[in-house]
Amino acid sequence: MEPAPSIEIEFRVRYAETDQMGFVHHANYLVYFEMGRVELLRARGLSYRDLEAQGFLLVVVKATVRYHKPARYDDLLRLRTTVTRVTAARIDHSYKLYRGDELLAEGETTLACVDRQGRVQRVPDFLREPGSA
Amino acid sequence: MEPAPSIEIEFRVRYAETDQMGFVHHANYLVYFEMGRVELLRARGLSYRDLEAQGFLLVVVKATVRYHKPARYDDLLRLRTTVTRVTAARIDHSYKLYRGDELLAEGETTLACVDRQGRVQRVPDFLREPGSA
Amino acid sequence: MEPAPSIEIEFRVRYAETDQMGFVHHANYLVYFEMGRVELLRARGLSYRDLEAQGFLLVVVKATVRYHKPARYDDLLRLRTTVTRVTAARIDHSYKLYRGDELLAEGETTLACVDRQGRVQRVPDFLREPGSA
Amino acid sequence: MEPAPSIEIEFRVRYAETDQMGFVHHANYLVYFEMGRVELLRARGLSYRDLEAQGFLLVVVKATVRYHKPARYDDLLRLRTTVTRVTAARIDHSYKLYRGDELLAEGETTLACVDRQGRVQRVPDFLREPGSA
Repeated sequence: MEPAPSIEIEFRVRYAETDQMGFVHHANYLVYFEMGRVELLRARGLSYRDLEAQGFLLVVVKATVRYHKPARYDDLLRLRTTVTRVTAARIDHSYKLYRGDELLAEGETTLACVDRQGRVQRVPDFLREPGSA
Repeated sequence: MEPAPSIEIEFRVRYAETDQMGFVHHANYLVYFEMGRVELLRARGLSYRDLEAQGFLLVVVKATVRYHKPARYDDLLRLRTTVTRVTAARIDHSYKLYRGDELLAEGETTLACVDRQGRVQRVPDFLREPGSA
Repeated sequence: MEPAPSIEIEFRVRYAETDQMGFVHHANYLVYFEMGRVELLRARGLSYRDLEAQGFLLVVVKATVRYHKPARYDDLLRLRTTVTRVTAARIDHSYKLYRGDELLAEGETTLACVDRQGRVQRVPDFLREPGSA
Repeated sequence: MEPAPSIEIEFRVRYAETDQMGFVHHANYLVYFEMGRVELLRARGLSYRDLEAQGFLLVVVKATVRYHKPARYDDLLRLRTTVTRVTAARIDHSYKLYRGDELLAEGETTLACVDRQGRVQRVPDFLREPGSA
C-alpha cells in the first residue's frame, strides 16, 4: 500500500448548505472535512464503512476551523486533507479549502478510536503505518 | 393513559436552517414534523428513544409537504401534529405549521415499523390504542 | 440548446447524512432532489445561481417522497431527475433514486417562481421551452 | 440595559442531529453554539435578526470545539454561552455544553462584523458595552 498522506477532493456547494447571509453555513465545513478524511482512507484502499463494521469507530475529539473568505452556493471547492500525526491514541489531520487558488478556510481535527460502547481503544496498526489514516 | 391524538409544539427557527433565499430550507420541515411526532409520543408517556431500544424502529415510508408561505429566521413557529390513522402496518400523521395565525405549511407522513435488520413488523399494540402513536 | 428533460447524477452518501438508525435521514432526500434539479438546469446551459441573480427564485411549493429501501453511508447513489410539466405558473419534476439497479426512493416536486419579495411571477420563457427547466 | 455576559439555554437533541454512530454529529455543536449567541443577544434586548436588517452581519472567523463525551438523541442539553472579549474588530465567546452535570463539550468562537458586501466593519458600539454581544 502506497503512502497517501494527503489528498484533494473537489465538490460543489449545495443550495441547502447556504444560509441567509448568502454564504455556506460555517458548520458545514466540518462536514466537508469529514468527506476529505473518508476519501483519504479510500485512496489507501481502506473504507471507513468497513472500519466501523470491524468495530473501530473514529470520533472527533477536537476540531478547529479558521474561516478566511466565504464559500458560496454552486462554488466548485477543492479540499486538501493531510494526515499530520498518528499515535496509538490519536490521529491528527489538517485541511485547506480552496476555490480556484483562493484559500477559503483551514482547519485541524484530532480523532480518537473508540469501540461500539464508546470506550477508547488503540488506533489499529494498519492505520499507523507511514502516511496512513 | 389519555388519548392524545394531537399536540402542539413551539420552537424558534435557527439561523442554520435558513438558505440564501432568506427562508427556511424546505427539507427542514421534515425535521420539524419529526419533532412533532416525538413530542406527541412523549405526551402519551412514551419515549421514541425507549421504543427504539426495544427494537421498534419507526421509519418514514412516505412524506408530503405543501409549502404555503415561507418561514424565516428567528420566527416562533407552532406545529400541530395529529395521528390520523393507525393500522397493524402503518401510522399516519398530519401536520400544520403556523406562525401566529398564519398557516405556513401542511403535510402528511406514513410510518412503518421495522426491526433492527430493517424487516417490517407489526405496529406494537400499545401504539394502536385509540388516539395513540 | 438541446432538450434535456431528464438527467442522472451520481454521488456518495456522506456520514453526516445518516442518523442513528444507520440509514440516510429522510429529510436529506429533498436535498438530493434539489441537486438533481440544479444539474438538470446546468445540462441545458443554465445556472440556477445566475437565475437567482436575475431575480427568478424557484421555490418548492409541494414535495412528495416515497421511501422504498434505505440508503446507507458511503452508498454510491444515482438520481434520475425529470421535468414532467412546465406551465406559466409551475414546474413539476419527478425523481428516482437508485443504488445500482435497486430503486430506493421516488418523489415529485412542484416549483413556483417568485421574486426577491416572495411575490409569485410567471415562469420565464427560457425555462418553458420544450424539455427545459 | 443590564450586562448579560453569560446565558444558559436548554434544548433537546433532535433525531436528525444524530449519525449512525448513535451520537450527535459533531458539526451540530456549532449550530448549538450559534443558538446560544442568539439567545445571549436576546437576553440583552437585542435581536440578531434586527442587527442583520440594520446591515451588521456577524460572521464566524474562527471556531474550536473540544468533544469530551457524546451527546445522544433525546438528551436534554444545557448550553452556557459567555462573551469573553469584545474589541472594535472581534467578539469572542466561549461555550460549555452539559447533560445534567456532565460536561460534554467546550468551545470558543471569534466573530467579525461585516456589511452586506462582506467588507469588515467596526463592531457597533452598542455591542461593545460591558457584558454585551
